[in-house]
Amino acid sequence: MTNNVIKALEWRYATKIFDTSKKLSDDQVHTLLDAMRLSASSFGLQPWKFILIKNPQVREELFKNAFGQIHVRDASHLIVIASKIDLDENDVSAYVKQMSDERGVPVEMLQGYKDMMVGFVKSKSKEDLQSWMQKQTYIAMGTLLTTAAMMDIDACPMEGFDRVAFDKILGLTELGFASQTICPIGYRSSEDQTASYKKIRMPFEQAVIEI
Amino acid sequence: MTNNVIKALEWRYATKIFDTSKKLSDDQVHTLLDAMRLSASSFGLQPWKFILIKNPQVREELFKNAFGQIHVRDASHLIVIASKIDLDENDVSAYVKQMSDERGVPVEMLQGYKDMMVGFVKSKSKEDLQSWMQKQTYIAMGTLLTTAAMMDIDACPMEGFDRVAFDKILGLTELGFASQTICPIGYRSSEDQTASYKKIRMPFEQAVIEI
Repeated sequence: MTNNVIKALEWRYATKIFDTSKKLSDDQVHTLLDAMRLSASSFGLQPWKFILIKNPQVREELFKNAFGQIHVRDASHLIVIASKIDLDENDVSAYVKQMSDERGVPVEMLQGYKDMMVGFVKSKSKEDLQSWMQKQTYIAMGTLLTTAAMMDIDACPMEGFDRVAFDKILGLTELGFASQTICPIGYRSSEDQTASYKKIRMPFEQAVIEI
Repeated sequence: MTNNVIKALEWRYATKIFDTSKKLSDDQVHTLLDAMRLSASSFGLQPWKFILIKNPQVREELFKNAFGQIHVRDASHLIVIASKIDLDENDVSAYVKQMSDERGVPVEMLQGYKDMMVGFVKSKSKEDLQSWMQKQTYIAMGTLLTTAAMMDIDACPMEGFDRVAFDKILGLTELGFASQTICPIGYRSSEDQTASYKKIRMPFEQAVIEI
């Protein structure tokens, strides 16, 4: 497994030109989204929503707001990762309720855990809370990219798009979410010369310190 | 591979009690850190440092600043993920220089890409830049957790520790970095009852929207 993961991550690159004729199966897409759903997040609160774009007209509208980056239009599928805008005691209560139901533990026994979470949430300004929730969505992006690579699926993590336009087109604001990153997924085109470029990474000794 | 990834992510949990008698091999730890090193980041700038704690005294000092959470002390290994504090044109230039060297492309041909990155960096306030770099480190955390799970290695992603103390003990500030998250890695203890708890996640239909 060791070599498999490293090989997959070395094979991975930010795919700029996708093969428009190759589509991912429903099963593949479901697996990627399910892996994201299973991602870790602080306290397990999962302050995110993953949007799978299926409607071609919507896809075209999003493409128009992605600074001409054709992979947004041409990849087999497009995933938008959004973070929650607000988080309050009600969200924590719902989470604790689900935990109580699914684990068969009385809510009273989870009171300490709940209090800790509520205390944390209340200690933060609205901006800090948003920033904290946004960070969690990047864990899901890491999960997506690693999972895709292990499945020989290409992807391109992106921050460069018009978030306001995306939120409007997808109706995210009304749902209480804001788009953070997007990720076209599918298969690289043989015409994507960047696939053969050497991956540029810090040498191990520079990226890692041993103390 | 599909089922392997999902099975691994379902097996994964935030390990609270590690088996102190079971140690990861150097190869395993190197693979995990190398996977992190290969993580995606915005523009590929890798605004991070990964610190592997090997010195037992340092580990003990860190434990004292982790609110009594014994997994910080007891796990086979401890990784600290830090983000860069400052990022300026010099960092971008160094990155472009490496790209030029390793790909054999004249720096002049990378000028457009460089200008775009420098423009992005200069358009941000120091705080926004830090927040943006911090987010990138969460991708590496996602890579770490997914990779560890695929390798049957346990882990516990953590934000709850005294960052100021950690930075001081590890001398990170002088290096231009600030700790963001930590992750004890190793093997779960048979005494960790939380290992058998049902994982609490939003149902697929709630985590994912299809549009």
